[in-house]
Amino acid sequence: MDKVLLLNAGSSSVKWKVFEIESEKVAGEGEVERINTPQALVTTKFNDEKKQSREPNLGYEDAGRMILNKIEEFKIASLNEIQIVGHRIVAGGQKFKKATLVTPDVLQEIKNLKDFAPLHNPHEARYVELMQKILPNVDQYAVFDSIFFTDMPESNAIYSLPYELTQKYQIQRYGEHGISHSYLAERTAELLDRPLNELKIITLHLGSGASVAAIKNGKAFDSSMGFTPLTGLTMGTRAGDADPAIVPFLMEKEGMTAEEVMTLLNDRSGLLGISESSSDMRDIEAAWQKGDRQASLAREIFINRVVKYVGAYFAELGGIDALVLAGGIGEHQIDLRLALLKQLRVLGIEVDEKLNQANQEGIISPQDAQIKTMLIPTNEELQMVRQIKKEI
Amino acid sequence: MDKVLLLNAGSSSVKWKVFEIESEKVAGEGEVERINTPQALVTTKFNDEKKQSREPNLGYEDAGRMILNKIEEFKIASLNEIQIVGHRIVAGGQKFKKATLVTPDVLQEIKNLKDFAPLHNPHEARYVELMQKILPNVDQYAVFDSIFFTDMPESNAIYSLPYELTQKYQIQRYGEHGISHSYLAERTAELLDRPLNELKIITLHLGSGASVAAIKNGKAFDSSMGFTPLTGLTMGTRAGDADPAIVPFLMEKEGMTAEEVMTLLNDRSGLLGISESSSDMRDIEAAWQKGDRQASLAREIFINRVVKYVGAYFAELGGIDALVLAGGIGEHQIDLRLALLKQLRVLGIEVDEKLNQANQEGIISPQDAQIKTMLIPTNEELQMVRQIKKEI
Repeated sequence: MDKVLLLNAGSSSVKWKVFEIESEKVAGEGEVERINTPQALVTTKFNDEKKQSREPNLGYEDAGRMILNKIEEFKIASLNEIQIVGHRIVAGGQKFKKATLVTPDVLQEIKNLKDFAPLHNPHEARYVELMQKILPNVDQYAVFDSIFFTDMPESNAIYSLPYELTQKYQIQRYGEHGISHSYLAERTAELLDRPLNELKIITLHLGSGASVAAIKNGKAFDSSMGFTPLTGLTMGTRAGDADPAIVPFLMEKEGMTAEEVMTLLNDRSGLLGISESSSDMRDIEAAWQKGDRQASLAREIFINRVVKYVGAYFAELGGIDALVLAGGIGEHQIDLRLALLKQLRVLGIEVDEKLNQANQEGIISPQDAQIKTMLIPTNEELQMVRQIKKEI
Repeated sequence: MDKVLLLNAGSSSVKWKVFEIESEKVAGEGEVERINTPQALVTTKFNDEKKQSREPNLGYEDAGRMILNKIEEFKIASLNEIQIVGHRIVAGGQKFKKATLVTPDVLQEIKNLKDFAPLHNPHEARYVELMQKILPNVDQYAVFDSIFFTDMPESNAIYSLPYELTQKYQIQRYGEHGISHSYLAERTAELLDRPLNELKIITLHLGSGASVAAIKNGKAFDSSMGFTPLTGLTMGTRAGDADPAIVPFLMEKEGMTAEEVMTLLNDRSGLLGISESSSDMRDIEAAWQKGDRQASLAREIFINRVVKYVGAYFAELGGIDALVLAGGIGEHQIDLRLALLKQLRVLGIEVDEKLNQANQEGIISPQDAQIKTMLIPTNEELQMVRQIKKEI
């Protein structure tokens, strides 16, 4: 049976899923976390089983090989059943508007687009190269996270820079988590049994990377993610919105290069920077409950920035039909979700505490609420399969 | 009769007003515009008269002397009646929390704070020095535009940077137009005949510099202006919010220094950058009416960013009692104001078209509107006099 392996490589982890192409059935999935650390952890799920093993200091190349070993070991697929490997690529710029077969030119282009996603594209390109090496006869597809946002209205997409520079370098918001936001929009329409092109939706993808999308009539209308995935919400290690003047300021005061300031803003800021303890919202919640001052501040800022983006997009969309929560934080942190939603009440956004507590896919607002508050576990891999299937 | 001269120096203009200290009555006022250009224009108003003269290529020092000449020439005051000169200073950092007598140390501190307002502080310091030279026996007071915002809640004020850097350099939003926003808040309470400390207000100061403030119980709660006055709304020449990653990107691509990028973002962006024709919203409106594409884009972006900030602050304040419009654009551009307010209807913000058209201070929403939409000509100079009077 023809299968597709999907890889979603983060900076310190790689998630994977194997689908039967035709049926879109999941044959197995897993994750390698904390790559290159003593805590490296390999998880594989298939049928209803879950296997885990510690693999201290597992490197990124070994992680790739390990995934293929697990797929064979647990009979999720034989390697020759895998017809396609699909890679999530964060930044496709204005160049890539659909899932794309990776040729040497395409690979080079992915690397060239690193300006738009310095944390992601170079890393993802390494996994493409690795899979080309291990599975030389298998087609590799790049599925770009930025596709969903390429058609945003110009007035929302561009910055207020000199227009010739905006055009010369295509400096604009590219959005991110587009695969997730587009999945969430389509799934919302399904669950509400309404045509997507009649809906106004705000989707919250809240994970260690986090973004808000405004979606109007099925199309991306605005995104909190910017020219790079640095901006918007306060994230695990990313600062989110910040005054560009901070760059020259820190260069001068700290004797840093501009690149070093960007690394600081991308890797050492966000929840980690404020809390001074963790980039993981689960740790922040735990520390907050114990009264930790910095964790409390980090949590408050995280919620505040989400509230502000929802308010902003609510206003520019002229109201919404649905607010959707997803991502690790959105899907699993029940108390935080409740705290956030309570602050949105003034917009007519409501939450039924019991439904919120039940933590299942679907509507979590009271039955009579006009705006539907939805919890939807995102499914980027399924959306990737669907995008690849359109191109093969 | 004791009088006070107030100076409000912009980068290419200086506005002034003479008040009788005791009665707060205006004795005269004026402006020198387009300093150092062939179009330099001197305007003086007193009683109900208005005098204007072209003074091609008038320099900044001459402009200062010219103001004092006009004050004497039109008998607004004799120079020995002037007991105090008050200067609007944009950035006072965390150091200055009230109107302050200028000593050599204070003057040096104002210059040192240039990181926070590169367009403003150095220029304003020059006017302080000029007036010290011309009027050596007169007390000079600095009235800081940032005072109103120094007590914002930490979670709104700070960025999501590593906390030790936030503290080490006091990197945070400092707000701007604080003298204006605080005046608008107090005047709103007066006009509504309600106690300021019970009101939630969003104030829009829309001029060539433009900012939004969220005000809760009489205190600043949030500000669109950032670490420097670069961020927030799209302004005449300032970019407003932008991804900090644009700084290293343009440094590399255009071979610019970080400072050159900041100059580009401060002086060549905003309405001017998008429209490629003018930084003045009156010109943009005129060009838009003729169908000019770039002007139309600039106008749309300007309105969109205001709409988003109002939505964001509406949400974080949990609703508002009043929305206040002020500043050159807010006070005078009737059509633009109407277009903006119509987009805010989903928040319960309404406009009575006749009242809007009448363009007078007061409520411009329909009588039964719960949220009061207000037009209030700002009066920074009066607010400055009041702040100085508290300290003498």
